[in-house]
Order: sequence, then structure tokens, then C-alpha cells
Amino acid sequence: MRVGIGILGGGTVGGALAHRLLTEGEAVTSKTGLELEVRKIAVRDLAKGRPYPFPPDLLTDSPADVVNDPAVQLVVELMGGLEPAADLVMQAIEAGKPVVTANKELVAIRGDELIKKAEERGVSLLFEAAVGGAIPIIRPLSASLAGERISEVIGIVNGTTNFILTQMCESGARYEEALAEAQSLGYAEADPSADVSGSDAASKAAILASLAFGTWIASDRVHREGIDQLQPEDIAFAADLGYLPKLLAIASESEAGIGVRVHTTLIPTDHPLASVRGSQNAVYVKGPAVDELLFAGPGAGGDPTATAVLGDIIEAARELLAGAQVPPRVRFGSGRIRDFSDIDTSWYLRLEVVDEPGVLAQIATTIGANRVSIESMVQIGRGETATLLFITHPSPESDHQAAIVALRQLEVVRQVAAAMRVLTV
Amino acid sequence: MRVGIGILGGGTVGGALAHRLLTEGEAVTSKTGLELEVRKIAVRDLAKGRPYPFPPDLLTDSPADVVNDPAVQLVVELMGGLEPAADLVMQAIEAGKPVVTANKELVAIRGDELIKKAEERGVSLLFEAAVGGAIPIIRPLSASLAGERISEVIGIVNGTTNFILTQMCESGARYEEALAEAQSLGYAEADPSADVSGSDAASKAAILASLAFGTWIASDRVHREGIDQLQPEDIAFAADLGYLPKLLAIASESEAGIGVRVHTTLIPTDHPLASVRGSQNAVYVKGPAVDELLFAGPGAGGDPTATAVLGDIIEAARELLAGAQVPPRVRFGSGRIRDFSDIDTSWYLRLEVVDEPGVLAQIATTIGANRVSIESMVQIGRGETATLLFITHPSPESDHQAAIVALRQLEVVRQVAAAMRVLTV
Repeated sequence: MRVGIGILGGGTVGGALAHRLLTEGEAVTSKTGLELEVRKIAVRDLAKGRPYPFPPDLLTDSPADVVNDPAVQLVVELMGGLEPAADLVMQAIEAGKPVVTANKELVAIRGDELIKKAEERGVSLLFEAAVGGAIPIIRPLSASLAGERISEVIGIVNGTTNFILTQMCESGARYEEALAEAQSLGYAEADPSADVSGSDAASKAAILASLAFGTWIASDRVHREGIDQLQPEDIAFAADLGYLPKLLAIASESEAGIGVRVHTTLIPTDHPLASVRGSQNAVYVKGPAVDELLFAGPGAGGDPTATAVLGDIIEAARELLAGAQVPPRVRFGSGRIRDFSDIDTSWYLRLEVVDEPGVLAQIATTIGANRVSIESMVQIGRGETATLLFITHPSPESDHQAAIVALRQLEVVRQVAAAMRVLTV
Repeated sequence: MRVGIGILGGGTVGGALAHRLLTEGEAVTSKTGLELEVRKIAVRDLAKGRPYPFPPDLLTDSPADVVNDPAVQLVVELMGGLEPAADLVMQAIEAGKPVVTANKELVAIRGDELIKKAEERGVSLLFEAAVGGAIPIIRPLSASLAGERISEVIGIVNGTTNFILTQMCESGARYEEALAEAQSLGYAEADPSADVSGSDAASKAAILASLAFGTWIASDRVHREGIDQLQPEDIAFAADLGYLPKLLAIASESEAGIGVRVHTTLIPTDHPLASVRGSQNAVYVKGPAVDELLFAGPGAGGDPTATAVLGDIIEAARELLAGAQVPPRVRFGSGRIRDFSDIDTSWYLRLEVVDEPGVLAQIATTIGANRVSIESMVQIGRGETATLLFITHPSPESDHQAAIVALRQLEVVRQVAAAMRVLTV
């Protein structure tokens, strides 16, 4: 049972995948009965040196040649970016060729349309590698858990920021130092903005939420904040309170609707996600029947991602060989998507205040006047000024924002020195 | 797209599943487009009261009526045990009906034959719920990771024993006390032997290993030992050395072949499996490309297991509706299965010895003469007798067994008071 494979993109993942298919094909064949034959690979620069040299007769610098080659029955898109990837994937699907992609941006922005087109043409469109690298999470969400009413998906889905946060927590490094180290080790790019701004995580959050809740959530509906405001002092104070910071993708569904957001979040040190260190990723899923599930592993890298892509290729090849129309995996309904300002959040606040009688009463009154209630308060130090740490109970984001604005206006508050959300369980 | 479902078994899982299908069908339909209609349920006793009452016209006490009903297009086997389950599943497959089962015993003993028959008839045979309850692990191993050369699968796959061990570690309870507590809470059966002997875990180990390595491993090829020899003293000593005990299913493949075993094992307290507490299950997978993956969640219970079964039903129904022959998911090759005695193990040994000069030299000589080398030694207490704790380096199981026999024959060794394997990483 032979299937001709065309690969778009000869970068880290494309290279690792082609190498695996060319050198370990037999192992796949003995395990699955499938002969996966690489027929064409589109690369940007034919002359470029590569860690795994490809047979030159397989190479082309025209991606359209891969998609249109009649010997290519299944297209693997590993170019990244929105265009021309979206066009090429659409062409492949229209030609009745199943597509496997690792492109989170493509799926997060054009997934709805591509999934519909794939359903219409009865071909597979698989994207296990788009979230969580080697961690099987897309297939579990869309198949294994298709019968569960998932209430919450919480993920550490960006390895760069998790590496930076782990460094800050474990070595006391400042944000700039930890970022520089991540860059020197190859965990962060020269321009790290897509990672540290939460934008990469927001694409992944949108994909996870869409599959978990069966409602299409475009990535621009995801509220996003990055990690660059985090200060070492707050990591130390939070540790004393039993918390540590993670950049979390949080998607939840309640009767009020679906909320999806990415921001730095303090989580209890005994939370399952607290032990996810360095560039590791993990996704936590909660539902009434399954209670809590955790999936953890390497979230990026050529070899791990190639494994996820290869798993999808095998599944798509099986379905191709079955010869029939592939029934849809997911249907998107029309769940209500909530504004971020309506969602209940809890906060950690660090206030620098004038140390005199009656100050706490004033502050507590101001917080309460904005319908926010205080779960705990600790005073650090005494003297002319004091530091107050507050953890608040869950109440709407907008009330918290109003409370912070009001606190800034109090004369006894010298500074709202830090404000960070806390995971509400 | 309507699919008629027949359920064999109205127990905990069957009841939870039928209830979900009867009351939450619409949610499944909106998410997947499938109408899953329960057409018949076979129960042992029609008169029995049930937590979720079924519509009486769906009930029968003849399982064959479910399999043979022309309105039943897909059979769900939740009776457990080998017969008549195996016969009924075989009949369903022969009639071209896809089968979903949660029956680990059935899959571990007859899986090879049933999978072949399903391939021959081009129908799905799915068993996600047979291992790890709600944790998606079967589909990740057989689909997502089909392209990975997995080297190791290590699982905590029996919730009863993990509950007992957690109690012993955290409250210092003796084995008998912890077992009694597990029984009173419903985590252990009145006759707990299948769980505490490692027999349940061995079935699951056989299934995981077969899928991970693509070689059929019947459950009688799995070496098994239970948890009933564990003493509280050794839990305390191991904790001082940085270890804790878990009943592990360990499957590994190297050039020498495949080894599969279940036994109480000391693992480092910072190992990812160390934090799996109570009745939770978890499976750890290692491979050259994916490095380490961890899957964790509830390993049993009606509702979690019903979710896994429902995920399989949805997949099988999709494939049924595609209308074509279903290509095989796994092919079993002929990997070499190693004898347990050849596998490298490490040990924790507690010896009660005469406390006099030269004793350690004698013991070390005896251990070395059996080709076992010592990684560390600690002496506890002094006086007429002393306690020596050893951790050994990995070497073949048979050499360790010979060393233990030889130690027992030394006059200076009053007692080999405890001997337990340690996870070798």
C-alpha cells in the first residue's frame, strides 16, 4: 500500500521529517503496512546546505509543483506563515489530496474555512503538530474526548516563555537576562516578540478551544498579554504565598459562554502544571466525566514535531487508502464567545503604600467599592512606606481593572507596583 | 447520519455510557454530526434496580440478540471477562459490525486474533478504555506515535494498588490497613487479588507493549509480581534515599529484544510518575524523537471509562459511515521477546547482619561474585546486629537472584529482610 508524499518546506521540521521518511520507512511499513514514499520537497533555496541532504531529484523551489504533481497523493505543509501556505493547502484539498500541517498560524486564522472545504471534498486535514509539538493533544481532543463536555483547557503551549519563566524562578534572573540566555541557547529567536507577547500561545489557545468546545474561535478573539512585565520581586513574594508564574492559555466554557485568553498567571506550586519546567509544554483538560487529564512533553523542535506530523501522515494515508469520502472530524456550532472583561479573574496586587493607621481600611473600601473582595493580605516591612500584597477572590475582569484604576488614584497608595492574575480553580 | 448502537453489559460503565447516549446525544450530534442511537442493551438480570434506569424496551438478557439485531450496526462490549465476550465480539466482527470494547482481559489474551479478524473484515476494533480509563493512551500509541521508535513505556495502570501505595507512603499505614481502607472506599474489591497480584496491570502492560513495539505480546509473557510484600520500614528507608514505591508496568525495547514486566519498583521522588497519587493512572513514553511524554488522569470509574468508550464509538461510527473497508491500524511483526531473567534490573536490598569487622567485605565479595555491582551502601544503627541498605547497579535479573540466594547463605547475614527493584533510567 504505497502513498506518494509531497512536502512543502525543507526547514527544521521538513528536514527532520524527510530524513525519517527516507531512512526509517521500513520501520513504518512493518508497523502499519504503509509505504510512505517522498516524491517531492519544495524548499526556498535549492543551493542551501542542509543537515540532512535530500536526493536532489526530489527538490523543487516551486511549491505549486508539489501540490500539482500527480505522483503526490498527500501534501505535508511545513512552510509556516499564512501565505502562500493557505493557498497551497486550499489547492491540495480542492484537488482531493489530504493535507497534514504543523502550521498553527494557518489553522488558527483559516482553520474554519479549510476544515469546511476538507469536509466538502471528503479528505483529511490533520494538524496534530500545530499545538504542543510531539504531545498528542489535537487527536485526543477531537477524537478520544469528542463525547466529553469539556469545561476547561489550560495549557503551557509556548516553550520559549516557559523556559524564560523557569529561569527567572529558579535562578532569580531578571526578564532581560533570562531572555538573553534563551536566545543564546536557541530557545528564543532574535526577534522574540511572537513568543513573549503571547501571540504564538494565542494561536494555539484558539485551536485548542475550538476543538474542545466545538465552536470556531478565531485567534483574534483571544485576549493576549505577554510575560515582559514580570519582576523578580513578585516571583519571590508569590513563592512565599505558594504560587509561581506561568504563561497560560486558558479556555473555559460555562453557561455564560466561552472565554479564551493568554496571560501570565500565578498558579499554586502543587498544581499539575507547576512542575512543567524549561521548554516543556503541557495541556491540562477538565471535564465532568474525565475529571482532570494532563498531557506533557516537548513542545517544539524538529524531531518531536516530525513525529507528530508522521502520525498524522499515517492516519491520513489510511483514510486515503480506504478510498471513500472521509466523514468530518469536527463540526463547529455557534457557542457564545465572552468578552474578556466579563470573565471572572483573581489577582495578585503589590501596593507600595504610606504606612499609617487607616490606610488598609481606605484600600479595602476602594477595592470593595468596585465589587472585588479580598482573599488574603500580607504586609511586608514597616517604616515610612510599606508593601501590601493582596490576593483577590474571583470577580469580573472589568471590576478588577476598575479597582486598580481607583487604587492608583488614592493618595495613600504610592504605587500599584505589580498586578498579575492568579489561576482560579 | 444515524448509527444504531448495541451495548453488551449494563454494569458501571455500560450504565454510565447508556445514560450519556440517552441524555446527551444532542451535544454529541452538534459536535460530530453523528446521531448515536442506543438500540439494545444486554444485561445479566432484567429485574435488577439500576442507578440510571434504561427504557425497558431496550433491554434484553440475551447478548446474542444485541449482536444479531439488524438495527445494531455497532457493538459495544462492556461485559468484561473472557467468555462469552470473546465469542460475541468475534461474531460481531464477522457480521461486519465495528466493535468498541473496554475489556483489557479480552484484548490482552485474544487481541491478536480479534485484530486480525477485524482487518480481514475491514471493520474497526477499538479499545481505548482497556488501559488507563479516561486517559487517551491507546490512540496516541497506535496513531499519533505510529512513526516513533518507542524505547520505553512505563505505566501506573492500576488505581487500586496506587491508592494503597500512596496511603502507605503518606500515612505510614501497613499494607493490610491500606488495603482495608481501599476496600471500604470502594477502590478495592472484596477479593483484591487481581489488582494486588499485578495481574490486572500485566494485561494492560501487554496491550501497551504490543502497540508501542508492533509485536504481539500475550499477557502470559509478562512477568508479574504484586505489592503485598512491601513493608513500611522500607518505605521509610527508601524515602531517606530519595525513592518511593510504585507498582509499575515497564515495557522496553532494545536491540536485545522486548521486555515486559510488572512489579513494585522504587522510583526517584522527582520522577514524573512519582507525583501520581491515589487512584490516578499515568503512562510515560520515551523515544528518540519525542524524548519523554506523560499522560495522566483517572484510570477507572464508570464516567471516565464511558468517555473513552464514547470517543471510540464516535471514531468507529465515522469509519462505518465512510462505507469502505477500514485499513488496519496496527500490524504485528515478530520482535524477539526477552526472558525476564535476562533483563537488566537494579535492586534495593535490606540486610540484617552481624555487626563485626569484615562483614561488609564478605557481603560485597558475595555480591560481586555474582556479577552485581554496588551503587551505594548505608549502614543504619550499630550494636549486635546492624541494618545495611544497598542499591545495586543494573545487571541481569538472574545475577541479582543468584546474589540474593548467595547472601541468604552467608552466616553473617541474619536475614535478607527486603529486596525490591529500583527503576533504572
